[in-house]
Amino acid sequence: MHSDRAAGSLIAALDIGGTKIAGALVDASGRLLVRALRPTPAKQDGETVMRAVGEVLGELRLDGGWRRVVAVGIGSAGPVDASRGTVSPVNVPGWRDFPLVERVARAADALPVVLTGDGVAMTAAEHWLGAARGYDNALCMVVSTGVGGGLVLGGALLPGPTGNAGHIGHISVDLDGDSCPCGSRGCVERLASGPNIVRRALENGWVPAGGAEPTAAAVAQSARAGDPVALASFDRAAQALAAGIAATATLVEVRVVVIGGGVAGAGDVLFGPLRAHLARYATLSFAAGIEVVPALLGTDAGLVGAAAAAAQALGLAEFSPEFALEG
Amino acid sequence: MHSDRAAGSLIAALDIGGTKIAGALVDASGRLLVRALRPTPAKQDGETVMRAVGEVLGELRLDGGWRRVVAVGIGSAGPVDASRGTVSPVNVPGWRDFPLVERVARAADALPVVLTGDGVAMTAAEHWLGAARGYDNALCMVVSTGVGGGLVLGGALLPGPTGNAGHIGHISVDLDGDSCPCGSRGCVERLASGPNIVRRALENGWVPAGGAEPTAAAVAQSARAGDPVALASFDRAAQALAAGIAATATLVEVRVVVIGGGVAGAGDVLFGPLRAHLARYATLSFAAGIEVVPALLGTDAGLVGAAAAAAQALGLAEFSPEFALEG
Repeated sequence: MHSDRAAGSLIAALDIGGTKIAGALVDASGRLLVRALRPTPAKQDGETVMRAVGEVLGELRLDGGWRRVVAVGIGSAGPVDASRGTVSPVNVPGWRDFPLVERVARAADALPVVLTGDGVAMTAAEHWLGAARGYDNALCMVVSTGVGGGLVLGGALLPGPTGNAGHIGHISVDLDGDSCPCGSRGCVERLASGPNIVRRALENGWVPAGGAEPTAAAVAQSARAGDPVALASFDRAAQALAAGIAATATLVEVRVVVIGGGVAGAGDVLFGPLRAHLARYATLSFAAGIEVVPALLGTDAGLVGAAAAAAQALGLAEFSPEFALEG
Repeated sequence: MHSDRAAGSLIAALDIGGTKIAGALVDASGRLLVRALRPTPAKQDGETVMRAVGEVLGELRLDGGWRRVVAVGIGSAGPVDASRGTVSPVNVPGWRDFPLVERVARAADALPVVLTGDGVAMTAAEHWLGAARGYDNALCMVVSTGVGGGLVLGGALLPGPTGNAGHIGHISVDLDGDSCPCGSRGCVERLASGPNIVRRALENGWVPAGGAEPTAAAVAQSARAGDPVALASFDRAAQALAAGIAATATLVEVRVVVIGGGVAGAGDVLFGPLRAHLARYATLSFAAGIEVVPALLGTDAGLVGAAAAAAQALGLAEFSPEFALEG
């Protein structure tokens, strides 16, 4: 099915977060052939952060595969503005409206560069090679320190005009609820993120077992042991996630929701009440019965997805799901 | 730009609601050339309702333009299931999983028949010829006895797999809120529809001025006269609409929301607080600053939109926005 040329094309992927800057050369079957990694100098000025990106790219360029690279895909912590090629990651204060696309293009032989938000990138990865594969309408989410997401509609990734579509963590499901750092109130993230699961448990008297750190994983452990406060905190998170997922299914008819991230690692403690609450909020015929499945790709989802999103934006069909795993 | 054939094509449109069944032949510039209308025998059995649809189609077929008809577009009260060609309108109990597409095709010379929900149809109309024209990403809403809607994303109508996408009235913005007839709680419709604006005003002691009927228009009139209870009821509706619109903008990056329906007729009493609340809920850079505009098409939106949605589904380019009003 592949032409020799197509089979040999690679995409250089960058996954830029507040902690690390990862890079890889990705082939048309989604394999990461070469990797590079730098810590993000998140507290430093913008040029210092850009230098770290340059080092990652420089390492990739040393590989013989670089001459097969046809595009660069960037998944970045948000907010991003793909329409202008700029990023303003909350956790990287040195970058505000930073012209990342232009700077990366300059460091990468003027190859086409495609920028998307990290939630969109994770979604592209799960749709290409993970739990959303084969679904034409899907919501993918990361429930972790924050709550992010992305959408596949009509068989294609929906980046949105600025690369931010699928921001389910900041839709309000409690219009009179607590203030969220984003400025709104009652956001899904304010109720369901890991730190908020911990905060709610602590406020209601939960104490980590065996003097452990108060993490969402520790709350999950207590919940599995039957601690009612820990169970209640996960139940409330599940309720908020269910309301947000049901809203999404009601608005755009997704049939599956893929959930990854650290909090999803709690397993049944989260997924059990989530499915129960979903049945209560997703009631219309076309929204009811949505499937809930765990994400399949781990920390590589950002790199794989940055490549997949770039391939879709540029129409590189050999990187599409139908061709994956054949290469 | 038009070929003679394209300029001459017509779409037969049906707008099926709980009160009336309207039909028209629609040309490529969106004009309604011939009309037919029957009351919906909503309390009768399914075959009686179908007979009224047949009469509307029969009247259209008598017109000389019928031989230029290339497709039939149906916008129906929901729920619909476009994937199976069936409808189950809440207010037409005789139709449950009624095979409307097959029955209409049989009555219309086996022309291609495209079914969508009425919210999707209204959206198609506003995008083709109304307030959403020229926008690639838009939410269109009807705020009336119920709250419905539809989406335009990436320049195209998003019907969703079953023709129900954009059901903003039944997303929950108050996860612990009042039960909604749909089975969920705290839905936008439960807070913002006309009957709920009236209910809330009456519960808080509002009395219609001059012994008028207790309608949303009467509440709006009291609000314009400064009645604090009437103002508060509209403000609460506006808050719920704002939370729902902000959720939509955050999920799919719409840049404009078009609002029609009887409650939108309240004007500034609704639009003023709506814009103020939107600024509080739509806070992320890509979601902030969404435009709010009144719908431009009136009661014909259902017919015009049924034709537009059919044209998009069948790829009839001459009925697309670029060609509208040139014919």
